[in-house]
Amino acid sequence: MNIAIVGTGLIGGSIGIRLKEINFSDKIIGVEKSESNQKKALQLGLVDEIQSLEDAIKNSKIIILTVPVDAIINMLPQILDQVTDQVVIDMGSTKSNILSLINDHPKRGRYVAAHPMAGTEYSGPEAAISGLFKDKMMVYVEAFKSDEDAFEIADSITEQLEMQTSFMNADEHDMHTAYVSHISHLTSFALALTVLEKEKSQGRIFELAGSGFQSTVRLAKSSPDMWTPIFRQNRTNVLEVLEEHINQLQKLHDTLESEDYPSLHKLIKKSNKIKRIIK
Amino acid sequence: MNIAIVGTGLIGGSIGIRLKEINFSDKIIGVEKSESNQKKALQLGLVDEIQSLEDAIKNSKIIILTVPVDAIINMLPQILDQVTDQVVIDMGSTKSNILSLINDHPKRGRYVAAHPMAGTEYSGPEAAISGLFKDKMMVYVEAFKSDEDAFEIADSITEQLEMQTSFMNADEHDMHTAYVSHISHLTSFALALTVLEKEKSQGRIFELAGSGFQSTVRLAKSSPDMWTPIFRQNRTNVLEVLEEHINQLQKLHDTLESEDYPSLHKLIKKSNKIKRIIK
Repeated sequence: MNIAIVGTGLIGGSIGIRLKEINFSDKIIGVEKSESNQKKALQLGLVDEIQSLEDAIKNSKIIILTVPVDAIINMLPQILDQVTDQVVIDMGSTKSNILSLINDHPKRGRYVAAHPMAGTEYSGPEAAISGLFKDKMMVYVEAFKSDEDAFEIADSITEQLEMQTSFMNADEHDMHTAYVSHISHLTSFALALTVLEKEKSQGRIFELAGSGFQSTVRLAKSSPDMWTPIFRQNRTNVLEVLEEHINQLQKLHDTLESEDYPSLHKLIKKSNKIKRIIK
Repeated sequence: MNIAIVGTGLIGGSIGIRLKEINFSDKIIGVEKSESNQKKALQLGLVDEIQSLEDAIKNSKIIILTVPVDAIINMLPQILDQVTDQVVIDMGSTKSNILSLINDHPKRGRYVAAHPMAGTEYSGPEAAISGLFKDKMMVYVEAFKSDEDAFEIADSITEQLEMQTSFMNADEHDMHTAYVSHISHLTSFALALTVLEKEKSQGRIFELAGSGFQSTVRLAKSSPDMWTPIFRQNRTNVLEVLEEHINQLQKLHDTLESEDYPSLHKLIKKSNKIKRIIK
C-alpha cells in the first residue's frame, strides 16, 4: 500500500517522517508544486519519490492533503472525481467551506476531514520534524459522513502519529479554532508590526526583548501563504473573535487611561483564570 | 557583609538562591511583609533570616528592592533617609517616576536603578529558581548618577547573576519596556479574557488549544499585584503602545472585513520581519 502526501511542508513532511519511521506503507509518494521543495523533501527523506497528483492518486490507497486551505478547496473536488476506493484525508485548518463544497459529491464517503492541532511557526520541508503530532489532538469533523472503512484507515494513521482524537461538527470546529489558534496568530502579527514600526525611530528597542516578548510574538514568523487562506476561509469567525479581542484590549486601555486601577487589577485577575486551562 | 532582599518573590528569591549558591555574602536577610511568604522563603532557603526593613537596612551593606514598583516608590525615599554608606538597588520594571522622585535626595549617589530583563509568568517565593538571570540583560538606568563605588558593588551582583548589561536613560528604558514587555502582557491578558468569555457559551473551546495558543496566552498567568503598578507607573508609554497595537489589529481586521487579501498577505509578510530579531 502506498500513501500520497500532497504538500511536503511542515505538516506533510512531518507525517512522512513518522510513517517512514514505522514502515507504515510500501511507499510515501510526495506531490509538490515547488521544484526546490521537491528536492528538499527527497533529500531530507520526507518522501520516497515525487509524482504528479494524477499519478499519485492512481498509485496510492491513501491521499493526504497538507497544502494551504485555499489549495485544498481548489483540488479536493477534482481529486474525489478520480478516486475509486481510495481514502482522501484533508488536514486543513478550516472545515465549513470545504465540507459544504463536497457535501453532495458521489465520493463524499471516501473523504475524511481531519485537523491535527499541531504545528510550529516554521514552514516548508526543512521545518518537518519527527514527533510533531505526538500527544496532540486530531479533530475529526463530520466523521459520520465518511464511509466506515475510510474513517478506520484515516484513524489508523492518527494512531500511528500517536495523537488523541476529538469529534466536532464543522461550525463548532471553525469557531473553536478561531478562538484558540487563529486569533493567537493575529495578535502575534499585530504585535510584531507594532514593535517593528517603533524600531524605525528607536533602534535599540529589541535589546530588552526577553522571553515574554518572544513567547507572544513568535507566531509572527508564520507563513502568509498558509495564514491568509485560513483567515479567508474562516472569515466570519475570525472577524468575531478579532472584534472581541480588540474590545478587551480597549477595556484594558480605558481603565488605564481613566486611572481606574481597581478595575484594571480586576480584569488582570480575571484573565488569570486561564491557569485552569494551561499548565 | 550582609545583603538585604526586600520582597522574597520570583525576582528577590531567585537572587537569593544564586547569591547563596556562590556564598557571595555572609548572610542574606529577607524583608517580607507576608507572613506566609516569610515562612516559605526560609523553608525554600531563599534567605537566611527574616528581619524588619529597619533592621535589615542597619545590618546590610547592600539593599535590593524587588517588591512591586508602587511599593518601591513608597519605600525608597525613606530607605535612602536611613542609609549611610550602604548601596540600594531597585530592580523594578519602571524607572522615570522613581528617578525623578529621588533625584535630589542627598543620598542619591548610594542608589542604583537596575532592571533585570528576566522573569516568568509565576510569582511568589515558590516561583524563585536558580539561573533565572543567566545570560539575560541587566539594564542600568541613569547609572552616571550613582557613586562609583555603589555602582561597582551593584555591578558585582549583576556579574554573579551571570547577566549581560546595558545602559539607558529613564525615558528610553520606560518606552522600550512598554514595547517589548508591557504590551506582551496586555495582549495576553486580553486574549485570555476573550477566550474565557467565549468558554461560557462554548464549553469545549479549550480542547483544541495547542502550543501556539499557550505561547501567546501564558503571560496572562502573571500577577495583577505586580502588573497593575507597572502599567500605572508607565501609563503614558503603555497607552501609546496599546493604541498602536489596537490600530494594527484594526488594520488586519479591516483588510479581512473588506476581503482585501493581497493587503492582508502583505501585512503578515511584513510582520515576518520579526525573524531578524527573535530566534
